[in-house]
Amino acid sequence: MATENYDKQKTIDLRKKHVGPSCKVFFSHDPIKIVRARGQYMYNEKDEKYLDCINNVAHVGHCHPDVVEAGAKQMELLNTNSRFLHDNLVLYAQRLQATLPEKLSVCYFVNSGSEANDLALRLAWQYTGHKDIITLENAYHGHVSSLIDISPYKFHQMTGAEPSQHVHVAFSPDIYRGKYCEDHPDPATAYAENVKDIIEQAHKKGRKIAAFIAESLQSCGGQVIPPVGYFQKVAQHVRNAGGIFIADEVQVGFGRVGTHFWGFQLQGEDFVPDIVTMGKPIGNGHPMSCVITTREVAESFMSSGMEYFNTFGGNPVSCAIGLAVLDVIEKEDLQRNALHIGGYLTQLLDDLKKRHLLVGDVRGRGLFIGLDLVRNREKRTPATAEAQDVIYRLKEQRILLSADGPHRNVLKFKPPMCFSREDAELVVEKIDQILTDLEKTLGLQMSEAVISENGHTKRKEPSDENGLVHPSNGSSHKHTGTLPLDKKNNKKQKT
Amino acid sequence: MATENYDKQKTIDLRKKHVGPSCKVFFSHDPIKIVRARGQYMYNEKDEKYLDCINNVAHVGHCHPDVVEAGAKQMELLNTNSRFLHDNLVLYAQRLQATLPEKLSVCYFVNSGSEANDLALRLAWQYTGHKDIITLENAYHGHVSSLIDISPYKFHQMTGAEPSQHVHVAFSPDIYRGKYCEDHPDPATAYAENVKDIIEQAHKKGRKIAAFIAESLQSCGGQVIPPVGYFQKVAQHVRNAGGIFIADEVQVGFGRVGTHFWGFQLQGEDFVPDIVTMGKPIGNGHPMSCVITTREVAESFMSSGMEYFNTFGGNPVSCAIGLAVLDVIEKEDLQRNALHIGGYLTQLLDDLKKRHLLVGDVRGRGLFIGLDLVRNREKRTPATAEAQDVIYRLKEQRILLSADGPHRNVLKFKPPMCFSREDAELVVEKIDQILTDLEKTLGLQMSEAVISENGHTKRKEPSDENGLVHPSNGSSHKHTGTLPLDKKNNKKQKT
Repeated sequence: MATENYDKQKTIDLRKKHVGPSCKVFFSHDPIKIVRARGQYMYNEKDEKYLDCINNVAHVGHCHPDVVEAGAKQMELLNTNSRFLHDNLVLYAQRLQATLPEKLSVCYFVNSGSEANDLALRLAWQYTGHKDIITLENAYHGHVSSLIDISPYKFHQMTGAEPSQHVHVAFSPDIYRGKYCEDHPDPATAYAENVKDIIEQAHKKGRKIAAFIAESLQSCGGQVIPPVGYFQKVAQHVRNAGGIFIADEVQVGFGRVGTHFWGFQLQGEDFVPDIVTMGKPIGNGHPMSCVITTREVAESFMSSGMEYFNTFGGNPVSCAIGLAVLDVIEKEDLQRNALHIGGYLTQLLDDLKKRHLLVGDVRGRGLFIGLDLVRNREKRTPATAEAQDVIYRLKEQRILLSADGPHRNVLKFKPPMCFSREDAELVVEKIDQILTDLEKTLGLQMSEAVISENGHTKRKEPSDENGLVHPSNGSSHKHTGTLPLDKKNNKKQKT
Repeated sequence: MATENYDKQKTIDLRKKHVGPSCKVFFSHDPIKIVRARGQYMYNEKDEKYLDCINNVAHVGHCHPDVVEAGAKQMELLNTNSRFLHDNLVLYAQRLQATLPEKLSVCYFVNSGSEANDLALRLAWQYTGHKDIITLENAYHGHVSSLIDISPYKFHQMTGAEPSQHVHVAFSPDIYRGKYCEDHPDPATAYAENVKDIIEQAHKKGRKIAAFIAESLQSCGGQVIPPVGYFQKVAQHVRNAGGIFIADEVQVGFGRVGTHFWGFQLQGEDFVPDIVTMGKPIGNGHPMSCVITTREVAESFMSSGMEYFNTFGGNPVSCAIGLAVLDVIEKEDLQRNALHIGGYLTQLLDDLKKRHLLVGDVRGRGLFIGLDLVRNREKRTPATAEAQDVIYRLKEQRILLSADGPHRNVLKFKPPMCFSREDAELVVEKIDQILTDLEKTLGLQMSEAVISENGHTKRKEPSDENGLVHPSNGSSHKHTGTLPLDKKNNKKQKT
């Protein structure tokens, strides 16, 4: 095949020889060689097709022709740095700004989510004159050294690693596995109080808070959806301490959550972060990224006297690609697709929960969904090995899914936004079969009575945006069977 | 014009509104809007042509068709992360490795020089178990926070800024403006002794050295060429202290120095760094970058247990572009062009020195050249305002050049590698006129006698690779009039 220079074994051998061993491949005992991709499908060297349920970078679909054309055309014309004026830069800044609350008006273009989050820290340090950062348990914000410091997901991989002195780790606002669960009367306030406590403790040590940083929905941390109101309350505590709020949208932005363009908007219109960072999906795979902040923060950064120059950031090619991505999201109504197909997929997974004891929790917004596998529903014991089994068996059936979270037991759905109803049905059908097999082996079978009782909840409790039910007074998660595609639900989804 | 959406003033206004004010444009009082570029030429919105003498990112020439085609073709086919196997990644790693000493065999692909240098620090910290970094005066290694820490060029822009505790600043090995000049019997040893002293001081405080980092030739620092043997001696001191040597080739790599593919190779075959970082020219403008190190360092990094994943790094598009850049360098013999045209340009600038008192020093290797302007040759007083004047007047004549170094008085030449003899003649002719004007205004005129004496040196002293003469026992720099394109010189240049 023209797209292959070496046979697969040779590729593996050369990779072992010349690529850092810390750079892991998926399915290391039998990795996949991909030679082309289109939409939500990837093809290996034998032209076998894989359904991609994980690649949130290929946001508008792998190799989208409009994006490719925009990039190729601009590459032919000009690709230089932002010390020269260029319309693509300002057009793109305008377009991004228009998706955000008005006060988030000043952009910095960089090359990766890591560069974006590092710059966000620099902005916060300069603006506040403080040094300390509050981050969440299991958070991942990037691979440069300043971000490893604030990423428990990473630094906990090192033996005996402790957070740096200037880093404080707050509870993850996880109402399934966290300190305050769905049976708590007000988890948003309770989790925000934890941040307040941390601030007070830091102050007692003479330390000062520069920023609170969180993904708007935690991704690697286990597809965690913070309770509504949490960000507002945290922002208040942090701002009272002279700090600012950084919303990391690198994984979840650009319409993925369905009801809104940005994940933080799920918290309500009354919440506006001081800095928003974006990345992965922004260029559909092209290395680019952006930090957007307020005029006040930007001017304070300038007042340090230090120029900010990023060699590749905001070049005309990146901006042309960024503009094309925004165009495709609009033209193909991909945010709405995320809402509908995401809702449908959530519902199908929810149905799985009714039949499979291994499914502990289904949670998500739009096409950002987690399936939390457990060995024991009461204890919520993470079913780590089983989650690995599911993704390996799916891979054999040419479906790409991954498991993440601190226990690596949460199946993560974050497919290209063109994901279809049929794709959703296919992956859920396969998971259904695999869970059936696994439960048979484990002797975990649900009684008819339980299945019927689960079905019963359908008529009892209202569902939220994605058809999920979070009963406020029960200890277990229950979900309706209502399809989010019906009219009543669509209305709810818009609120 | 189809390539312009807004008139220039509107672009400026929007940029003021939506782009971080720390992001400066060139010639801020009358910035340039560029809409297309080709080879070593850039064109503004009126289709007026500028000669580009500064853009070392557009290494093989702006918008080189081979590079554009390679990128466009691969974008159409596949652009995904390196958790899947792909031949481009291993092909590219092989090709890069082949340009380096054999022990530098393991690659990490990232998105920018900043990401590369940050990763180099992480590798050094993990491998050595030490924390401290020795950097050079006026060094610039990138914009992420860990690199601002080791970049005096940046942190000195902030009022009252001092280096962090773990950062030690060594003398810049600058034999024109540094502590030990060309009249010193052995500046290489003397500058290396300074590093040794720093290590000893650090040890006295109980601190331990992780790495010494330096650009192979200092760029922003003022186009500084370290004396041959300096790196070897520094490496010995640093390795004796358990640290490693990081060569930053972000600005100067990929054949620019003419005689060699990498700048550090100018130090001799007996010098091999432990880590080499590359960036800017690597993708001719595409955001990509690489860190190459030894098997030992890479395995130690892996042993921490922390995976290294870079979302965009090493994607098939970046690798296709990287491969195309290497192909063009070879096919068009651009390293040799850098040697010859760089030598010729150096010679022309050298001739300027004979006629203009404002020229204090001409130094360079290949197409990496600095023209150090001075108000007083004896005192070597930096002619900062005059350097600014030169670049502004050149701009009016549509020639792009910049001034850098700690005093912003060094005119920096680092043009696309396809720079021609005619380009060299044009820029030097214009500088000649401008210097004549400036000297007239300043009342700085060289006597006929001096011009004749300068000419006289031609027959007295041998020239080095680029036709430069560094007399070992004089206090002033003198240069031959010998063209480096003649046979004898070409031979010398190969050594």
